Amino acid sequence: MLIVMHKEAGDRELDAVIKRIEAHGWEAKPIPGGERTAVGVLRNKGPLDPAMFLDLPGVRDVIPVSKPYKLVSREMRPENTVVRLGRGSDAVEIGGQQLVVMAGPCAVESENQALEIAHAVKEAGARLFRGGAFKPRSSPYSFQGLGLKGLEILAKVREETGLFIVTEATDHEVCDMVEDFTDIIQIGTRNMQNYRLLRRAGQAKKPVLLKRGMWATMDEFLMAAEYIMSEGNDQVMLCERGIRTFTTHSRNTLDANAIPYMRNESHLPIVVDPSHAAGRRDQVIPLARAAAAMGVDALMVEVHTHPEQALSDGPQSLYPEQFHELVTGLRNMNISV
Amino acid sequence: MLIVMHKEAGDRELDAVIKRIEAHGWEAKPIPGGERTAVGVLRNKGPLDPAMFLDLPGVRDVIPVSKPYKLVSREMRPENTVVRLGRGSDAVEIGGQQLVVMAGPCAVESENQALEIAHAVKEAGARLFRGGAFKPRSSPYSFQGLGLKGLEILAKVREETGLFIVTEATDHEVCDMVEDFTDIIQIGTRNMQNYRLLRRAGQAKKPVLLKRGMWATMDEFLMAAEYIMSEGNDQVMLCERGIRTFTTHSRNTLDANAIPYMRNESHLPIVVDPSHAAGRRDQVIPLARAAAAMGVDALMVEVHTHPEQALSDGPQSLYPEQFHELVTGLRNMNISV
Amino acid sequence: MLIVMHKEAGDRELDAVIKRIEAHGWEAKPIPGGERTAVGVLRNKGPLDPAMFLDLPGVRDVIPVSKPYKLVSREMRPENTVVRLGRGSDAVEIGGQQLVVMAGPCAVESENQALEIAHAVKEAGARLFRGGAFKPRSSPYSFQGLGLKGLEILAKVREETGLFIVTEATDHEVCDMVEDFTDIIQIGTRNMQNYRLLRRAGQAKKPVLLKRGMWATMDEFLMAAEYIMSEGNDQVMLCERGIRTFTTHSRNTLDANAIPYMRNESHLPIVVDPSHAAGRRDQVIPLARAAAAMGVDALMVEVHTHPEQALSDGPQSLYPEQFHELVTGLRNMNISV
Amino acid sequence: MLIVMHKEAGDRELDAVIKRIEAHGWEAKPIPGGERTAVGVLRNKGPLDPAMFLDLPGVRDVIPVSKPYKLVSREMRPENTVVRLGRGSDAVEIGGQQLVVMAGPCAVESENQALEIAHAVKEAGARLFRGGAFKPRSSPYSFQGLGLKGLEILAKVREETGLFIVTEATDHEVCDMVEDFTDIIQIGTRNMQNYRLLRRAGQAKKPVLLKRGMWATMDEFLMAAEYIMSEGNDQVMLCERGIRTFTTHSRNTLDANAIPYMRNESHLPIVVDPSHAAGRRDQVIPLARAAAAMGVDALMVEVHTHPEQALSDGPQSLYPEQFHELVTGLRNMNISV
Repeated sequence: MLIVMHKEAGDRELDAVIKRIEAHGWEAKPIPGGERTAVGVLRNKGPLDPAMFLDLPGVRDVIPVSKPYKLVSREMRPENTVVRLGRGSDAVEIGGQQLVVMAGPCAVESENQALEIAHAVKEAGARLFRGGAFKPRSSPYSFQGLGLKGLEILAKVREETGLFIVTEATDHEVCDMVEDFTDIIQIGTRNMQNYRLLRRAGQAKKPVLLKRGMWATMDEFLMAAEYIMSEGNDQVMLCERGIRTFTTHSRNTLDANAIPYMRNESHLPIVVDPSHAAGRRDQVIPLARAAAAMGVDALMVEVHTHPEQALSDGPQSLYPEQFHELVTGLRNMNISV
Repeated sequence: MLIVMHKEAGDRELDAVIKRIEAHGWEAKPIPGGERTAVGVLRNKGPLDPAMFLDLPGVRDVIPVSKPYKLVSREMRPENTVVRLGRGSDAVEIGGQQLVVMAGPCAVESENQALEIAHAVKEAGARLFRGGAFKPRSSPYSFQGLGLKGLEILAKVREETGLFIVTEATDHEVCDMVEDFTDIIQIGTRNMQNYRLLRRAGQAKKPVLLKRGMWATMDEFLMAAEYIMSEGNDQVMLCERGIRTFTTHSRNTLDANAIPYMRNESHLPIVVDPSHAAGRRDQVIPLARAAAAMGVDALMVEVHTHPEQALSDGPQSLYPEQFHELVTGLRNMNISV
Repeated sequence: MLIVMHKEAGDRELDAVIKRIEAHGWEAKPIPGGERTAVGVLRNKGPLDPAMFLDLPGVRDVIPVSKPYKLVSREMRPENTVVRLGRGSDAVEIGGQQLVVMAGPCAVESENQALEIAHAVKEAGARLFRGGAFKPRSSPYSFQGLGLKGLEILAKVREETGLFIVTEATDHEVCDMVEDFTDIIQIGTRNMQNYRLLRRAGQAKKPVLLKRGMWATMDEFLMAAEYIMSEGNDQVMLCERGIRTFTTHSRNTLDANAIPYMRNESHLPIVVDPSHAAGRRDQVIPLARAAAAMGVDALMVEVHTHPEQALSDGPQSLYPEQFHELVTGLRNMNISV
Repeated sequence: MLIVMHKEAGDRELDAVIKRIEAHGWEAKPIPGGERTAVGVLRNKGPLDPAMFLDLPGVRDVIPVSKPYKLVSREMRPENTVVRLGRGSDAVEIGGQQLVVMAGPCAVESENQALEIAHAVKEAGARLFRGGAFKPRSSPYSFQGLGLKGLEILAKVREETGLFIVTEATDHEVCDMVEDFTDIIQIGTRNMQNYRLLRRAGQAKKPVLLKRGMWATMDEFLMAAEYIMSEGNDQVMLCERGIRTFTTHSRNTLDANAIPYMRNESHLPIVVDPSHAAGRRDQVIPLARAAAAMGVDALMVEVHTHPEQALSDGPQSLYPEQFHELVTGLRNMNISV
């Protein structure tokens, strides 16, 4: 934290600032400049709130310096984290050499639906099957998912196809059930700051795919991952799924700039969900290609054999042949899928 | 929902659109115009996803028409909802003739702290005491609230001062405890789409103060209130607490435009939290005055006797004398507080 | 500027940073902390671009410290600037004790229209007449204003009613004409960074009302005012007119937080335009009341006797009786209008 | 335009709506639904302002239907526009089969600097040289460009290297000079709604590269292109260069979703400027790769041999070897550069 004094501020104002810093047990380091003085705050643990000094007389500005997170930081751990699923020739590594593709419907609707889609996406190159058993829906009147039965269908999909499973835990109690059935626990965008769920996921024995809140800064997103890691789970993946902006030509805006930023700032694998970033089918393939070209570790894509009948998010789901075309296109870009 | 066809679209494309509408059991109503045809969708229950038709050939644009909510709508209930606390001369009405002020610290830290602040805000004109016992914090390393002990302190505050209590329930289990102790259950901005919590609050016997997610559109905010009401609780208050924008001179941006919009669109009482909308003390009084001048039903203001020692959000808390000055200023504007 | 080094950065990386700072003729001041070192940059004139150091090895973060503006800053000039129009009992002071109201149609359409509206707003309490003679329109097919003829009508309005005039200069050539006719030169939101126009306005002998770009941060807005002042014109007013956010319930979002921020940061008078901030009539009066309650120096309100026939922005114009009600309401709040 | 009535609205309210529509010479088409009636507006030229009907009693909502632009629309012209520079084997086609790369410094600083960079980018695969002679700078105290001398240097670059030239016209007078020297006239982000400049560019004999305003919706951006085309110039390119969002980890956010949207909606060539979208060197290559993978027609990249000494935007400029690496990387993705 750096506290910038007014030009006209005198010793009395400066002393008050130093006193408040020291009252917290921190160290104050005045830095006299040409026009004005600044005061650095040292020996604080964790970041401070700028507003803490803004009300003192003679203070012009207060500037945060430290990052709030530690465990997720590449500074803490320079080498990439790799999330491994399975063993031997069937193993999948997220954060390794290959781009891993996760695909499937928004929601699990029936065993037939899930199996039909699973076979189609496996054939096209997917290694994980995605599908929600518990659905957070913005309307209380919408389909809320099959619940436990959906989880059993997912287990069946894994058994029949060999695809690994990723599915969402919508609260800390649901997480108990999901952990038993899934290979990766997904935390959705609306729950990015559901701290009780984050802590529960941090105690899980399974890897966690954390979706960025559509409103979240990088600091907030990385702090949510820090919550999970602080409970002992270091198998966390960061999923960019679009942010809220002023635009109206798509449901969200893929934050492409976040990809290289996260790569520099964190050692955790990066996943992109082009389906929710787009919200409409005709933008999904371009966004998926963009993400792949930036070197993300995994893509999570909604695919449905009958999207017009889907109970949730059908209109952003690719048809299986479009998904096949997407994977083929990525291979034509010399990306190893 | 209105589906707008391309100029060049012919009968075949139009038929495909009509067929998809009818396949869902809805009615299609073509509206031929000068240059192109549009198709209205009728008899659907609840709003549709525009993307559902965007992939059909010949479709240029799809435009939502219906609002997704019902119970919260002023169309459903033209007269204002009034939330009543207590009886007789001590009763408080939120949504009535007077501006109700809720004030107190961000977090309950100790009995002494809570009582000292409660007496101060009561004297200045507050009718409710606010203070968190369970705190959602963006860092896992920060103070998380006193929990049950905090609730007991709040009960003591009510007993000693006669102030009603509003405090946050951070998840559905915590809500069981909070409901026993509080007069109003608060749902925080990060939980605006925690649907399990919303349903739980909808089953509570106490009124609910719902804070808007900092990213939420009006439709999303009103749908969150609809979740609560759909479980049978019609004592819901809508709290604007600032949205996330590109600006950096404040923690959030108070969405002043939302106040008259909500007044027109919903019958529920409107509360403004200028403290979180500002994030820094020097903007709180101006924002509170602005909200009061627009005729909101209640203000929720953070006040602390020793903000520099506060364990949470001290820098946006008013000193008691500033709070007093705020209330006096509102009365000078001929607002009945 | 503060350059924050990686924990692991050694002397070599630090030296490279210092060398680059000194190569620009500035002074480098290393500040060793507990975990890492930061380097302050001193003796630079004007703010630096953070990216200038981000590419050096061992640099973790670069943080701007100085504000980019000088002349507009309250630090430079502690007392408020007052813009004075006219003399004697007819004089108007913007930035003085009274709230000044500017009112009129979006565009001057005819002499009759202008005079009818002018008489109405004067009677209700307006001191300036607003109306565009040159209109920047987002469609090339829309009404673009009466041009010179519009300016002549404005002169007539002043002569007949005694109201002062404020009207927009849309480019540097138009500014020559506008300066001759008007009392205040308005620069519109789309031209906030039209630097040639800003310089031209800075050479004018008339005060300038500068509207904030709907995308502009406070730094950018204040720098645009600095452009004008740097040419010698110190009669500048800062007009907040709404920013672009993700919301859709209003055309723009009034940035209420900006009002106290500008008051602290600058000595220039503050104007609010609730009409453009709302974009729809039913939000104008609440926003105007909010601005007045925050102590702004002037309001700029669109009023039209026949808004349904207006050639531009009719739907956000108040009817004269609504305008009268607004002014009366402000007086009931004990605001001197 | 579709006007949605309240459930309770009766014949009187409906008649008033119809009357207002017909008063403008348009046609009103009532569409009775299950719960309420909507009214379509037909035979209007160009889009209407929703607020025009929002104030009528009984009106619940007003929904725009038509797009405001024509000439830029793919509906008007289904085949892609191709911008051609030069003839024979040296010809360049933007909007053709190849990805065209434009590269060079932010500002022309000297003949030596320009030639050195030009030779470097040509060798790596660029076909156009970019460089500003007139610079719009947010501070009045910054370097403003070499002006006419800069244009002469650009002419020299073309002569010596055979690269085509793209440079910015900052206002309508400057456009006269720029048109004489350049191959493509660039209009900058801050001038996207400088209508006088847009009209002037529409009268030019040279193609125009129009940068999107960092705040602009797709409708606003396409309307700015419509301004240019409405004056007779149909050689217009749409350049996405990042939008303003709440994020702080980059100067702007590349709106990746806009690329497929513009491709569907318009026949004009699409250019992406990853340098300004990033604002920092370490994000430029990833964003350029993302854009190329989405099939844009051209990239505009800042390159500088000594970015640390650049007078403008050095920190976002690639070194020549990074630029070479970028082009090589694109070719490895099987993109024809």
